[in-house]
Amino acid sequence: MSITTGTEGESVTPANPASDTVAQTTDVTALLERGRALSAPVLRAAVDRLAPPMDTVAAYHFGWIDAEGRPSDGDGGKAVRPALALLSAEVAGAPAEAGIPGAVAVELVHNFSLLHDDLMDGDEQRRHRDTVWKVHGPAQAILVGDALFALAYDVLLELGTVEAGRAARRLTSATRKLIDGQAQDISYEHRERVTVEECLEMEGNKTGALLACAVSIGAVLGGADDRTADTLEAYGYHLGLAFQAVDDLLGIWGDPEATGKQTWSDLRQRKKSLPVVAALAAGGPASERLGELLAADAKSSDFDSFSEEEFAARAALIEEAGGREWTAQEARRQHAVAIEALHGVDMPHQVREQLTALADFVVVRKR
Amino acid sequence: MSITTGTEGESVTPANPASDTVAQTTDVTALLERGRALSAPVLRAAVDRLAPPMDTVAAYHFGWIDAEGRPSDGDGGKAVRPALALLSAEVAGAPAEAGIPGAVAVELVHNFSLLHDDLMDGDEQRRHRDTVWKVHGPAQAILVGDALFALAYDVLLELGTVEAGRAARRLTSATRKLIDGQAQDISYEHRERVTVEECLEMEGNKTGALLACAVSIGAVLGGADDRTADTLEAYGYHLGLAFQAVDDLLGIWGDPEATGKQTWSDLRQRKKSLPVVAALAAGGPASERLGELLAADAKSSDFDSFSEEEFAARAALIEEAGGREWTAQEARRQHAVAIEALHGVDMPHQVREQLTALADFVVVRKR
Repeated sequence: MSITTGTEGESVTPANPASDTVAQTTDVTALLERGRALSAPVLRAAVDRLAPPMDTVAAYHFGWIDAEGRPSDGDGGKAVRPALALLSAEVAGAPAEAGIPGAVAVELVHNFSLLHDDLMDGDEQRRHRDTVWKVHGPAQAILVGDALFALAYDVLLELGTVEAGRAARRLTSATRKLIDGQAQDISYEHRERVTVEECLEMEGNKTGALLACAVSIGAVLGGADDRTADTLEAYGYHLGLAFQAVDDLLGIWGDPEATGKQTWSDLRQRKKSLPVVAALAAGGPASERLGELLAADAKSSDFDSFSEEEFAARAALIEEAGGREWTAQEARRQHAVAIEALHGVDMPHQVREQLTALADFVVVRKR
Repeated sequence: MSITTGTEGESVTPANPASDTVAQTTDVTALLERGRALSAPVLRAAVDRLAPPMDTVAAYHFGWIDAEGRPSDGDGGKAVRPALALLSAEVAGAPAEAGIPGAVAVELVHNFSLLHDDLMDGDEQRRHRDTVWKVHGPAQAILVGDALFALAYDVLLELGTVEAGRAARRLTSATRKLIDGQAQDISYEHRERVTVEECLEMEGNKTGALLACAVSIGAVLGGADDRTADTLEAYGYHLGLAFQAVDDLLGIWGDPEATGKQTWSDLRQRKKSLPVVAALAAGGPASERLGELLAADAKSSDFDSFSEEEFAARAALIEEAGGREWTAQEARRQHAVAIEALHGVDMPHQVREQLTALADFVVVRKR
């Protein structure tokens, strides 16, 4: 298995060596494919309910059509959340299909937040394409984001069951954390220093909360009690933190071919991601030199014309100060906590293995 | 009773002359006050749950603090919706208090839409103050709008009852219409002509749907069945259309002192409101002249420096073509349909009288 996220010569290898077998790898691909296959038609049918031109704008965002409205086979992302939502239903002993409305609702909320965040952050590219606000304008990005958010509740609440109400409540709670995380992200941009704890809290809100909801929502729809759902959320939350730690590594050292982002992407965006804040917190000569450089960068008017070498120098300092290794370890730590949480829930043996395999996948992925 | 919304010498007098008594007028003030008094503390407590700086931005939007963060006694609006939500609970035989979470959820959704619409429309003033995006920036307007939307579901779903789930579903449906209406509003801006029917559909979505939800949500929380809720929604929907017709009259001929808007406000914004589209659809010399003028205005680079007289001339043409009278009649028509719908629901005599008085108030208000 090729691992690109660790420091040179190391790897973000999960604690569980079982994931290194070909069988497990295939399994994860099949799980992701099942999540996509079962949820995509329901997601598309939901989005088709939007009034024009919002249906078209949303279809562009999801990659189903291009900017000219021609059918497109876009990159819908890794589909980890839908896979988790279906497994989640199986945890409760329900068929995977019981989790579909939950999978779709979570995807709708995730994409609502992408539409709004890209606009707030001024991000011009997502999944190798221009973002919605670049193509259709800011008003459509706001409006269609709102519409997807409302649609998420439509998809859940039209079930009309007590379980759907409980699922909607968990989705609300996750969405509020998502919004809190974005508020933190915005406020951190204006600050010179962010602590590792603040960064982890922000990432827990932005990534952990919705992944946690994905892992509990299917179980709730399948009739699980609150204790089971809470425990599953612990697994999902820590899995989200592991996922984000890997994302932060890829955001600096990822292969542009695989990630679809520029080289040193997060450094170009002055993102105070985990490797950066960990390196700054580490102390020592490299850490101090990095702090001086980044402080100067924040005031520099030439920043936008920095060369590859200048970003590479910053990345090297982050690595020298230990930020890369710390983040790779953090991914492993969070992975271990997530797996540990699974012990707290009774579930079919196969489902447990699949949740474990998905967790392993998250920390070894290349994009 | 002084009526400012009709054409010269006429009035938008409701069909029910009972509203002309002092007793009824007092009654409406008390109803609005009760709605405000019971819902405001719960609304504030909900908004206080937002993480900083969103709580502050929201408090500014609601008029509780000024741009510098000093306590302020802002204009919270007419509070028709909270008053309706409490009466709605009483329709179902429940105490008014049962409607409070519904009243608060509807107010949160209403204010989420104001925050986003003001940004999308580039509106710089609301309730005599700078809008949130002007004071706190576009990102905060998007983010806090999202947060209020999520909070609406929190307030409802934390009740944990089957009724709360049904109420949340109706709120979702109303919110989707609200968003559809905004999409229509935006698309109409780019079109030369909009039909009266299109305008009414847009206003039904933007104003009718949420007012309809306000009138059903309390009843649903109070245990009413779907038929009762649907009938109440018909009352609310047509009341919303009457409300909007009056708003459209005030948007052109309203007293700036009372409305807090500029003279000829909607004409300055080139809004294709009911009086305008009705005048354009009427035919005849004034209608044709108006059409030519507005078509020229759309291309004019001097539009922003138009004098009072130029707007007054357009308003006079709208009136001459019959757009003002048609809209005043439309307010009366929608008022009558709303009152008629009330006959379809059994309710305490006093509640029926109060809903009637509120409907009368909506068509005779001056702001």
